[in-house]
Amino acid sequence: MTNMDKLYESVAANGPVCVGLDTEISYLPTTDTAKTAGENVVEFNRALIAATKGVAGCYKVQIAYYESLGLDGMRAYAETLKMARATGLPVIADIKRGDIAKTAEMYAKAHFTGDFEADIVTLAPYMGLDSISPYLPYCKDQGKGVFVLCRTSNPGAKDFEYQKLADGRHIYDLVGDSLTEMGKDYMGECGYSSIGLVIGGTYTEEATAIRAAYKNTFFLIPGYGAQGGKAADIAQYLTKGNGGVVNSSRGILLAYKKQPGVAFDEAAYNECVRMREDIQGECNKL
Amino acid sequence: MTNMDKLYESVAANGPVCVGLDTEISYLPTTDTAKTAGENVVEFNRALIAATKGVAGCYKVQIAYYESLGLDGMRAYAETLKMARATGLPVIADIKRGDIAKTAEMYAKAHFTGDFEADIVTLAPYMGLDSISPYLPYCKDQGKGVFVLCRTSNPGAKDFEYQKLADGRHIYDLVGDSLTEMGKDYMGECGYSSIGLVIGGTYTEEATAIRAAYKNTFFLIPGYGAQGGKAADIAQYLTKGNGGVVNSSRGILLAYKKQPGVAFDEAAYNECVRMREDIQGECNKL
Repeated sequence: MTNMDKLYESVAANGPVCVGLDTEISYLPTTDTAKTAGENVVEFNRALIAATKGVAGCYKVQIAYYESLGLDGMRAYAETLKMARATGLPVIADIKRGDIAKTAEMYAKAHFTGDFEADIVTLAPYMGLDSISPYLPYCKDQGKGVFVLCRTSNPGAKDFEYQKLADGRHIYDLVGDSLTEMGKDYMGECGYSSIGLVIGGTYTEEATAIRAAYKNTFFLIPGYGAQGGKAADIAQYLTKGNGGVVNSSRGILLAYKKQPGVAFDEAAYNECVRMREDIQGECNKL
Repeated sequence: MTNMDKLYESVAANGPVCVGLDTEISYLPTTDTAKTAGENVVEFNRALIAATKGVAGCYKVQIAYYESLGLDGMRAYAETLKMARATGLPVIADIKRGDIAKTAEMYAKAHFTGDFEADIVTLAPYMGLDSISPYLPYCKDQGKGVFVLCRTSNPGAKDFEYQKLADGRHIYDLVGDSLTEMGKDYMGECGYSSIGLVIGGTYTEEATAIRAAYKNTFFLIPGYGAQGGKAADIAQYLTKGNGGVVNSSRGILLAYKKQPGVAFDEAAYNECVRMREDIQGECNKL
């Protein structure tokens, strides 16, 4: 059973909410000045994970927020991965690494074993398929998975990703097609391969076509809430409410700011429930 | 004076060799079993930096090799950056990060301040120009610099980078053109902007055109030696021996294997001198 299979089962059981632990120290309602920034972030994450584990489909940890705190932050990163994985839910390390094969081997070792071990990692495709291949032995042997950047919904996505190629496809189509082809050799029991794609949850015009083109590809869908993605849009990228996880980071971490008098962890739980109902409600309408 | 200016001056004084500290534990001729892998790597790097500082144009530290050792490796990474920067030579952190603006802000903070501070970082362009912009305030205010992936020489580069767009350009042309345009607002005294490009040192057919198209753009040129780039090829990407730095990692770190009876640090020094003469010799022929 692959980690993509586990993700599929978790979405079926708990819904598609991916809790993004992009924890910036300024998000914490209170801090303990006797502790380092990283230690404070760990305590916040610990409470957040405990509160949301029944309503999250998975966790995603954005490593940049931890790198920004230096060595103290990297310790917090390792500890956060450990806590999140202890829930039994799949944990995605949002690292977006992309480098030549020899270097990619090092990144694969870094993020699929040891202190920074995660279940699934995100990758960047620019340098080509040989920058993805070194992660695949871990998919084959240990059930690990990858989500490769394909079509994101940040304003800059139009600069390169959305550009048209000579054959009429967008760059993101070429990336999506190539990775889907590669994924055929890494198919899980659930019908989705261990090579997933990052597909932004906004811009609906091509959503149905994208979902139909990549039937066996699991999607990591950022953009809900803070980035402007609506549940009705996002439902188009799912198949009967599965085949994708929908990330929210600030929407969940900072939910307490919109729920006066409610503790941050309880507010995060409430927001996960609300978000899940919002998305599943739209899925049921399709 | 920007870090790209410092790099230009260093290449003029010391030559274009970029010593790549992609140090894998298996590269070390001997290890001290009382020390951690990271501590052993630091001692190797310390000797290597001491031996090569008179013949290196700059240092480049590939973070993947350090990440692969977990927290121990990240301590070695911080220490290696510190030792390399203490030479006064510019130090490039080869991190190839690329993410949405808010996350890129975190990466910029991570790698331009604190434990992991470097002078220049490498970036990946796939997500667009808003994934590059957050690094630019550091270029403006503190003279930091970036090298953005453009046209690499790994086999997979043909999968996406070399594909043709509807307008006849390659994807790498669009990336190079866009970043060069962006760089106009970040021009240094030396005539090169703080936004450089990563351009592989192999495949010569378009080398002259690329150098001519990006006159004010400094190149980080990987691919010498181990990856098949020859000095005659690489000279085409330089302008009178400057405007670029040429990376060699394994060629320098493992030079001792081709120089029996010579200590690893002395062998590395010899290889830097040989490589510099090789490249400068070809530059003088042009």
